Amino acid sequence: MMENRVLFGDIIWSLDRNTLSEHSSSFLVIENGAVEGVYESLPERFKSFPLDDWSGKIIIPGMCDLHVHAPQYQFRGLWMDMELLDWLNGHTFPEESRYRDLSYADEAYGIFTHDLLHSPTTRVCAFATLHTEASLLLMNKLEEAGLSGYVGKVSMDRNCPDILRETTEQSVEGNLEFLNRSAGFENMRPIITPRFIPSCSDDLMRALGRISVERHLPVQSHLSENPSEIAWVQELVPESSSYADAYRMFGMMGEEKTIMAHCVYSYERELELLQNPNVFVAHCPDSNSNIYSGIARVTALMDAGVKVGLGSDVAAGEEISLFAAITNAVKVSKLAHRISHPEDRMLTFREAFFLATRGGGEFFGPVGAFDKGYEADAVVLDDSSFRTTLRDRLTLSERLEQYAYVKGRDNVCAKYVKGKRLVL
Amino acid sequence: MMENRVLFGDIIWSLDRNTLSEHSSSFLVIENGAVEGVYESLPERFKSFPLDDWSGKIIIPGMCDLHVHAPQYQFRGLWMDMELLDWLNGHTFPEESRYRDLSYADEAYGIFTHDLLHSPTTRVCAFATLHTEASLLLMNKLEEAGLSGYVGKVSMDRNCPDILRETTEQSVEGNLEFLNRSAGFENMRPIITPRFIPSCSDDLMRALGRISVERHLPVQSHLSENPSEIAWVQELVPESSSYADAYRMFGMMGEEKTIMAHCVYSYERELELLQNPNVFVAHCPDSNSNIYSGIARVTALMDAGVKVGLGSDVAAGEEISLFAAITNAVKVSKLAHRISHPEDRMLTFREAFFLATRGGGEFFGPVGAFDKGYEADAVVLDDSSFRTTLRDRLTLSERLEQYAYVKGRDNVCAKYVKGKRLVL
Repeated sequence: MMENRVLFGDIIWSLDRNTLSEHSSSFLVIENGAVEGVYESLPERFKSFPLDDWSGKIIIPGMCDLHVHAPQYQFRGLWMDMELLDWLNGHTFPEESRYRDLSYADEAYGIFTHDLLHSPTTRVCAFATLHTEASLLLMNKLEEAGLSGYVGKVSMDRNCPDILRETTEQSVEGNLEFLNRSAGFENMRPIITPRFIPSCSDDLMRALGRISVERHLPVQSHLSENPSEIAWVQELVPESSSYADAYRMFGMMGEEKTIMAHCVYSYERELELLQNPNVFVAHCPDSNSNIYSGIARVTALMDAGVKVGLGSDVAAGEEISLFAAITNAVKVSKLAHRISHPEDRMLTFREAFFLATRGGGEFFGPVGAFDKGYEADAVVLDDSSFRTTLRDRLTLSERLEQYAYVKGRDNVCAKYVKGKRLVL
Repeated sequence: MMENRVLFGDIIWSLDRNTLSEHSSSFLVIENGAVEGVYESLPERFKSFPLDDWSGKIIIPGMCDLHVHAPQYQFRGLWMDMELLDWLNGHTFPEESRYRDLSYADEAYGIFTHDLLHSPTTRVCAFATLHTEASLLLMNKLEEAGLSGYVGKVSMDRNCPDILRETTEQSVEGNLEFLNRSAGFENMRPIITPRFIPSCSDDLMRALGRISVERHLPVQSHLSENPSEIAWVQELVPESSSYADAYRMFGMMGEEKTIMAHCVYSYERELELLQNPNVFVAHCPDSNSNIYSGIARVTALMDAGVKVGLGSDVAAGEEISLFAAITNAVKVSKLAHRISHPEDRMLTFREAFFLATRGGGEFFGPVGAFDKGYEADAVVLDDSSFRTTLRDRLTLSERLEQYAYVKGRDNVCAKYVKGKRLVL
C-alpha cells in the first residue's frame, strides 16, 4: 500500500548545487510515497494524513551512498597504514573470502545493515562478494530493513588469490543465478559489478557487458583510482585509449546507467566518456585520502557537466555516514585548490550536501530532494544535544553545516523511504 | 594531597614514535600522582591502593592539545566556506569581542570547559581573548574542572577591528595584571600570547618578549600558516630573514618554551629556528585543510629533530577531540606524499598517536606516557558499543586505531590528571 503521511519539523534540501531550500517549522506532505509539497501551514485536505511531529529537529532528504563494500565493513578504520596491495591481499581478500560461509555472512551483514539503517543513508549501491548466496543474503537484509538501492555480486576471474577466484564460466553462471533469484525484491535491485578491469578477463568483461545491455541492468565498478592501476589497465587492455575506454570497449561505460567510483585521474584522460548522461562518478574523498589515491577534481568534473555523487567506500573509507564524505569532500577540494589545482574551484558545503542527496539521488530516479513528485526519502536529525551560545541565532542551513561538521556520526532519530517509516 | 591509585584495564601508550606498549588486562599503578609502573599482576605492596576497575576498556595517556582558541568554540563547524580574512572579520573577531561581557564569557567558557572535560584531552594550551577578566575566568573554569595546562590572554594592538583592539600600553598592563592574578592557580598557568605578528606592533612584541624572558614564561603564537600571511610579515618586519626570525628578533622563538601553531611552510624557510629544543610545533591538520593553508611537512620536521604535537585549533578545526587531529594528520600526510612531497614519509597512526600524547606532552613536562615517573594523566575509552565480527581477533593497538578512526568523538568514560579522577 502507498504511504500518505505528514512530517513536521525544520525542513531543508538542495534545489540545485548552490541553493538550499529552508523551511523551519513546516509540513512535508507525503502522498502515495512521494513528496506532495512543503507548507508553512498544513492545507485542510491533508489534515486526515497521519502526522509525525519532529518539532525542532532537522528533516533532510535521505542520503545516497553510491559506493560501499558491504563485506569490508567489519574492518572499517583498521590497517590504514598499509599499501593498497598489502591491504587487499593481507586483509581485504581473506576477509571477503569468509563470506563463502553463510553463517558468517549472516552475522557480518547483519551488523552492516544495522549500522547503515542508523546512518543518514536511505539509498545505496553496494558491492558484495563473488559469493552468490551471500550476495542474495545481503540484498535480503537491506530489503527487510526497508532500505533501497542496488547490490552487486562481485565478478573477478583473474589477478586475485585462489581463496577469492571464480572461473569465467562460474562468474557468468553466478551472475545469471543472482539475477534470476533477485527478481522478486521490491526496493533492492541487482547491479552488474566487475570488481575492476585488472580482476576481470576480457571474456568475462564482454559477457557482463552483454548481460547488462540485454537485460538493461546498471553497472558499477572502479575507475582511475591511482596511477599504477591506470598503467596496469593500459597493459591489460592495450587497445584501449584510456581506462574508461576499456570499460566502453566491453559495453559498460554508459550503455546503461553506470557508477564509476573514484575517477581521481579522469578529468585529464577520459572526460568525454564521463560526460555520458548515463554515467555517475562516485566521489570517495575518505578512501582517496586513506589509501593515498589523490584528490578527484570534483568541481572541474561538475563544471564539465559530469554527474557526481558521494560514496563512503567503506572500508577504504572508515565512516558509513555520508556526513563524513560531505565534509571531507570540502576539505580535500580546498587542499587541491591550494596545492595541486588552483584553477579548480573549492567545493562548498552546499555543493557537497547536494552531491550526497540530489546529486547521487538522480541515479535512483527522482530521489534526494523534496521537490513535488520526488520519492519521499527523509531523515530526521536531532541536534538538540549540541551546545552553543549561538544556537538561537543560527539559520537552518547553518545548523545543518554545524551538524555535518561536528555531530554527523549519530543522532538519526527517524528515517523514511518512499514515505514508509523504517524501524530503527 | 598526592594521589595513590590503581587502574585496571587494557593499557596502551607510546614508548617512542614507532612503538606502542600494549598491556591487556593489566594494572596501572599511580603513586603520589605519578606512574609507578604497569603490571600484569598487582604487586602486594600496592594492594592497599584504591582500585578503579576498567575491565575491557582502553586506558591511554591523556591527550595534549597544543593549540585551541577557546572563544571560538561556539562556532565550531560553521562558516567553513569563507576566506580566512572574511571569516576573521565577519565572524571570529565580532564573536571574540563578546567576551568583554563576563556573563557571556561565563556561559560560553562553561560549554567549552564541559566539552573539553569530556574529550580525551587532559592538557591544553588555549588562546583566550584580549580581555583580562574573561581570560582569568577561562583559567578558573579549566582549573576547577581539574584540567591542566596554559591559558593566554591574547595580545593584539594593530591590524584588528576597533571592537577588538587594545593600545600597546593597555596590552602590556593587561598582561601584567593577568600574570599577577593567575599566580595562585595550581594546574593552570599563564602563557604569553601574541596573536601573531601582523596583529602586534614591534613595541608590543618587544615588551612581551621581555616579560617572557624576565619571568621565564612560555610563549604561544602562530607561524607560517599561509603564503600571503608570510609575505605580510616580511613587509611588517622587513629586517627579519623569515617569519620565525621575526619572533626571534623579539625574543619569542625559543628563549623560553615556545609553541608555534601550523608551520605549514616552515621546513623550507626556517627549519633551524624550529630545531631549538625549546620550540614545539602545533600541527593542526583540520584547520590547515578547512582554511586551505596547505599541508605541514610533519614527517620531514620530525625527521629533522623538530618537536611536534597536535592542535585541534578550534574553531578553524571543528573537532575538540584530538582523535580527529590524529586521523586527519595521517590522511593529509598521505595526500602530501601523493600530491606535493613524495619525498616525505607518510605519517603512521602510531606516530600521530605519539604526537597527540607523548609528543605534545613533553611541553608540559613528563606527560603523555605511562613510563615510570610520568605524571599520571589517563583517559578511559569504552569501545564496547563498537560492533564488528573481528572484535576478538584484534590486538589492543588495532582496537585503538579503529576507535580513533570510527569512534573517536565520544565514549570517554573516565579521566585522570596527575592521578586525580576528574568529575565528568
